[in-house]
Amino acid sequence: MSAALYDVLGLGNAIVDIIAQADDAFLVSEGLAKGTMALIDQPRADYLYGVMGPVTTVSGGSAANTIVGAASLGSRTAFIGKVGADELGKVFAHDIRAIGVHFDTLPANSGPATARCFVLVTPDGERTMNTFLGACQGLTAADVDPETVRAAKIVYLEGYLWDPPGAKEAFVKAADIAHAAGRKVALTLSDSFCVDRYRAEFLHLIQNGTIDILFANQHELKALYQTADLDSALNGIRQENILSVVTRSEHGSLVVDRVQTQAFPAYPIGRLVDSTGAGDLFAAGFLAGMAQVEDHATCARLGALAASEVIQHVGARPQRSLIEFARQSGLL
Amino acid sequence: MSAALYDVLGLGNAIVDIIAQADDAFLVSEGLAKGTMALIDQPRADYLYGVMGPVTTVSGGSAANTIVGAASLGSRTAFIGKVGADELGKVFAHDIRAIGVHFDTLPANSGPATARCFVLVTPDGERTMNTFLGACQGLTAADVDPETVRAAKIVYLEGYLWDPPGAKEAFVKAADIAHAAGRKVALTLSDSFCVDRYRAEFLHLIQNGTIDILFANQHELKALYQTADLDSALNGIRQENILSVVTRSEHGSLVVDRVQTQAFPAYPIGRLVDSTGAGDLFAAGFLAGMAQVEDHATCARLGALAASEVIQHVGARPQRSLIEFARQSGLL
Repeated sequence: MSAALYDVLGLGNAIVDIIAQADDAFLVSEGLAKGTMALIDQPRADYLYGVMGPVTTVSGGSAANTIVGAASLGSRTAFIGKVGADELGKVFAHDIRAIGVHFDTLPANSGPATARCFVLVTPDGERTMNTFLGACQGLTAADVDPETVRAAKIVYLEGYLWDPPGAKEAFVKAADIAHAAGRKVALTLSDSFCVDRYRAEFLHLIQNGTIDILFANQHELKALYQTADLDSALNGIRQENILSVVTRSEHGSLVVDRVQTQAFPAYPIGRLVDSTGAGDLFAAGFLAGMAQVEDHATCARLGALAASEVIQHVGARPQRSLIEFARQSGLL
Repeated sequence: MSAALYDVLGLGNAIVDIIAQADDAFLVSEGLAKGTMALIDQPRADYLYGVMGPVTTVSGGSAANTIVGAASLGSRTAFIGKVGADELGKVFAHDIRAIGVHFDTLPANSGPATARCFVLVTPDGERTMNTFLGACQGLTAADVDPETVRAAKIVYLEGYLWDPPGAKEAFVKAADIAHAAGRKVALTLSDSFCVDRYRAEFLHLIQNGTIDILFANQHELKALYQTADLDSALNGIRQENILSVVTRSEHGSLVVDRVQTQAFPAYPIGRLVDSTGAGDLFAAGFLAGMAQVEDHATCARLGALAASEVIQHVGARPQRSLIEFARQSGLL
């Protein structure tokens, strides 16, 4: 196994978030399921933009947020994802490169526009997402450069990649190359509705050895094992031969393997403003920790710290240097 | 004087803000004068975007921010400003209409793109701005609809309008129509460098009766009277036959006329995140107050409240309903 050029390589949908405040009545009247992610087509996207309030635009995408968070914590990172050759695509590429992430996936020169996610943030800080996948539909296995995959200690894949038709082949190709090079493969379950769509596939990936590390929140884990009871879901994941990291919002996280279950607290916050990116940034901290220290307690604390920063402002990308924050908190 | 359809009509540069965190060393190395606004051309805009960090995009423009803030406080509002027929122009129009502002200025179908302001926010919360005026250069007197001006109790004009060549004619036309209809005209001095550029013109506007209400921060007022001493500047403005509202950041505001000078406190905040829009939103609260109550104490308190909201997050547009905030604070 050669020396790693990157700590983490992310593979995911390249999305720009378009964020507005909304009240619960708006979600009800527009038929939006609070706290989840729904896929929408172009006409629905145009309609939603027309009825939503004033917006804040920030680059997003689940795995992309994670990679940016890891970069902000000092990790050496790369990202693979497909934007369109348009203004939002330039914004996505600018933002991910500006924080030091290696990103050279070719933009789609034709076809739909860069993906956007309309994020409605309610006064309780919960986010409800509507994603137009656009150019992400053009991601294929050809976009996965084997050299880049082999150069990363961990390949981080998002469950959302099961939505665009060609992306799952890219996912499987990246995982296969990583394992052949002796690297680790991590998966985030992304969203409980996403788990509902692809439960059998995700369980298969976990059970056939494709996945070494699993990130999930409690809702996604319960969806995976089709139970309303977290303990039952934890018993399920405990039987698998992987390391699982389960986030529980303000109740902190659980790190689970066949041998033990460790619980770690959330990082204290002032006010919850926008929960978008909480799970993504928790994964960022955990992965950055794994690249540097490996002990699960530090990984979970870095995850909690990174998540705490991003939920106290609008948008799922950090607004301050996370490595400075971690140092000030005595974590790095 | 017919019944007013609008409480406030704003006339200003229609700009989208592109905001990034930066440290003081970045400002120094790029030759940026902290806390001020500089005008830049397209190549400089492209260069700056290339070297700045990950961005958050939010509609801006000084007078536009003020009008949006007044709308959020329940005022009936309209705005005149020039965008291009492009993506950022659509964003600007969406955002200002989405909060209920009447906005029907025709976009420029040719010529430069929609204006953008690159805002660098340092860890102390100070903002340093670089504005590419773009399509704002196309604003002319023809864009000022006399009916809309006559329909507004107050016309609010930004000093920045002196930068694009045709906009000052639009400014003067709007002021003349307003006065002929028995309405009031307000001016914000915008920026101390802007005052340096147009000192004689601004003093002339104040002294020839074009301006009834002046908004300025202490730096701009000192620039107007070319003094380093605030008391001297206040003595200067006290001689003019206008109402002046002078903001002093965390030290609150002064409301000054020939008869008296009243001081009002700032509204308490948690953490200063980004001072962009502080003055704009103070003016929003003051103007919204004038439309509803007229007593200067309530106006200044509404101004302080609106400013306090916008400086606790990135971007110069409110992220919560200011009228709800004012009601919760017992102000409306």
